[in-house]
Amino acid sequence: MNEFEPKYASRTKKIKASLIRELLRMTQFKDIISFGGGVPDPETFPINTLKRIAYDVIEREYATALQYGVTEGDRLFRENLIRFIAEKDDIQGLDVDSVLVTTGSQQALDLIGRIFIDEGDIILVEGPTYLGALSAFNINGPHYITIPLKDDGIDIDCLENELKELEESGELKRVKFLYTIPNFHNPAGVTMSLEKRKKVIEFAQRYDFLIIEDDPYGLLRYEGEPIPPIFKLDSGERTVLLNTFSKILSPGLRLGTIVGKKEVIRKIVLAKQGADLCTPTITQRIAARYLETNEIMEDIKVTRDKYSKKLKTMLNALEKYMPKDDSISWTHPKGGLFLWMRLPNYMDTMQFFDEAVNEYKIAYIPGFSFYADGSGKNTMRLSFCLPSEEKIEEGIKRLSNLIKKYMR
Amino acid sequence: MNEFEPKYASRTKKIKASLIRELLRMTQFKDIISFGGGVPDPETFPINTLKRIAYDVIEREYATALQYGVTEGDRLFRENLIRFIAEKDDIQGLDVDSVLVTTGSQQALDLIGRIFIDEGDIILVEGPTYLGALSAFNINGPHYITIPLKDDGIDIDCLENELKELEESGELKRVKFLYTIPNFHNPAGVTMSLEKRKKVIEFAQRYDFLIIEDDPYGLLRYEGEPIPPIFKLDSGERTVLLNTFSKILSPGLRLGTIVGKKEVIRKIVLAKQGADLCTPTITQRIAARYLETNEIMEDIKVTRDKYSKKLKTMLNALEKYMPKDDSISWTHPKGGLFLWMRLPNYMDTMQFFDEAVNEYKIAYIPGFSFYADGSGKNTMRLSFCLPSEEKIEEGIKRLSNLIKKYMR
Repeated sequence: MNEFEPKYASRTKKIKASLIRELLRMTQFKDIISFGGGVPDPETFPINTLKRIAYDVIEREYATALQYGVTEGDRLFRENLIRFIAEKDDIQGLDVDSVLVTTGSQQALDLIGRIFIDEGDIILVEGPTYLGALSAFNINGPHYITIPLKDDGIDIDCLENELKELEESGELKRVKFLYTIPNFHNPAGVTMSLEKRKKVIEFAQRYDFLIIEDDPYGLLRYEGEPIPPIFKLDSGERTVLLNTFSKILSPGLRLGTIVGKKEVIRKIVLAKQGADLCTPTITQRIAARYLETNEIMEDIKVTRDKYSKKLKTMLNALEKYMPKDDSISWTHPKGGLFLWMRLPNYMDTMQFFDEAVNEYKIAYIPGFSFYADGSGKNTMRLSFCLPSEEKIEEGIKRLSNLIKKYMR
Repeated sequence: MNEFEPKYASRTKKIKASLIRELLRMTQFKDIISFGGGVPDPETFPINTLKRIAYDVIEREYATALQYGVTEGDRLFRENLIRFIAEKDDIQGLDVDSVLVTTGSQQALDLIGRIFIDEGDIILVEGPTYLGALSAFNINGPHYITIPLKDDGIDIDCLENELKELEESGELKRVKFLYTIPNFHNPAGVTMSLEKRKKVIEFAQRYDFLIIEDDPYGLLRYEGEPIPPIFKLDSGERTVLLNTFSKILSPGLRLGTIVGKKEVIRKIVLAKQGADLCTPTITQRIAARYLETNEIMEDIKVTRDKYSKKLKTMLNALEKYMPKDDSISWTHPKGGLFLWMRLPNYMDTMQFFDEAVNEYKIAYIPGFSFYADGSGKNTMRLSFCLPSEEKIEEGIKRLSNLIKKYMR
């Protein structure tokens, strides 16, 4: 008998295993070409700089770097972050109290869910959206409204219609926030246009909701000009901006940041006190000293070149191998780590996932897991950041063969 | 106007600032002798070993140590942990799936609260108890029943009476767990006797509740023989054991561990996926390699000697300077970082806290913050780990003068 079973809280039943993390367990064998996880290429980690900094930080700054820190985050790191954010996003005038360090961006999502979502509150999400956000929010029992994505970001007409309907039915006040990934969307790879960003802010003001802007990939742009963050366009009035060092430095450091109005940062700090007291001080101090070397923008250039080539290889391979059919399409990202494939409606990418892994020796993420409403059975996410260019070509060839097998 | 204010979840109103963390902000000035935080002496950190390990881990193991890891924790770390736990607590036969790594022990408490506590559930706590546990559990809205502490741990008769009453009133099934710190209690400094540990297990079986055993200080024993963990006595049937490296290695690494039945560990893993995906891989790998050096038990000896002397100094100073009065007493810990003072009932340690800091230039933690039921106004926690022996003597002298001033 299991003595623990009758003791779980009712919310524990709502917690589901992350499909991505479970699927990725299956794909850790060497002979599988994985387009699965959004796992950075370890060759992009600046190990020579980091190992030296880690040594120095422990030697010279151990009294801070190995000690408890304040919940808000290492002050030196926050000061350096403010300069970094000013440089990358042209967001000026931030105060150390407008910035909070989190244990990875996942913790930021968890804390956001914790402080904003009551059972039954309405959360607007894109369809598809980031799985990790859903798993962080789900525990609080929100009601999701899914707004489809187009090639230039959220379907703005659909968003407006939903808001109007909510207004008419008197449910508008149940809406807490829109969660959006405007740059190189995970999983869809698309980027929200400037015009749409402005519209989203306009709607947020008119219909009174907040905007949670998640931007893990903004610096990984391979073509075109950067578009200002919603946070900047809105002067942070209704927006909270999430960033992470996972894709531009190292995910193993688990360093995320939240930028927002001081009042909301303060609330999140109080929630974080109970969650983990503070993010490790050592990883924060290492990142702080790394930012001071001013090598990050140079290092990101190298990363960008590497991923940009891999993306081109994948797009070329798709063009070359995929069956020519109107019902098969994929996005053409200008940055980030992912592209999104749409297959004929009768296909189910979960159904042939086992076959893909065990017989075709390839992995992807079945698209339905990115939909709060459970749709998207005929879609999949392909990540191009980890395999070599050679493997990407070979993997897409195999994927095409698998898809051909299921074509009617 | 603040656009965020109307959007907070109702639970956000339950989150209070950690009094300790807020008070400690006031005491970070150099001229204050602080008996406040449970902050380790940085001179106990094995910096020479750690800096070398950090360098090597980043150089040679970057593909693991800087990458995402599994939610359960770095496998190598978990394997080394199992050996470490076998050595320190004689708990044999643990499997890697019985161990979970958390981002500090605070996250363990948060995850425990998340998976077990529904609004209104009854949680049994000691009075006083660890403040961080209350702040982790509070967000889920439990109802606490406070069981007083005696010099040999929890008041076992009182515990039995409470359980009998709950049984009679039909409320027993609302009880989820007892949260206890059996070794060198924070804040009380007392240790639960072997006999009481066995009684607690017997009650847990008879009245059907779980035991959350928090043991951050077990290895910091300065006299006497170790007493087996409740987890060992119970064979882990109803007990979940929390440990941390914060007091025996470095709090800045933020490494806690949960040991329990595989089924319960699995539930906690699922909750952790949404909370932060995984604890930083780099800190885990550093700790894993540190455990392999077999220096930890030697290093802890040095730490123990240092703290043991400080404790003696504090006890001697209390004996020497405190007014001789039956209504003034303090605990005589055999380990850990804290002792607990009881002043006459008419005194309020919060009331003269400002005066202590600003005029007497000393800090302590007012005791009421460690009581779930808000009692303990005439108590305080004194930590002896951070100030030098000289400062401890001087600080206790000042504290005695302050107390004398308020004696009737």
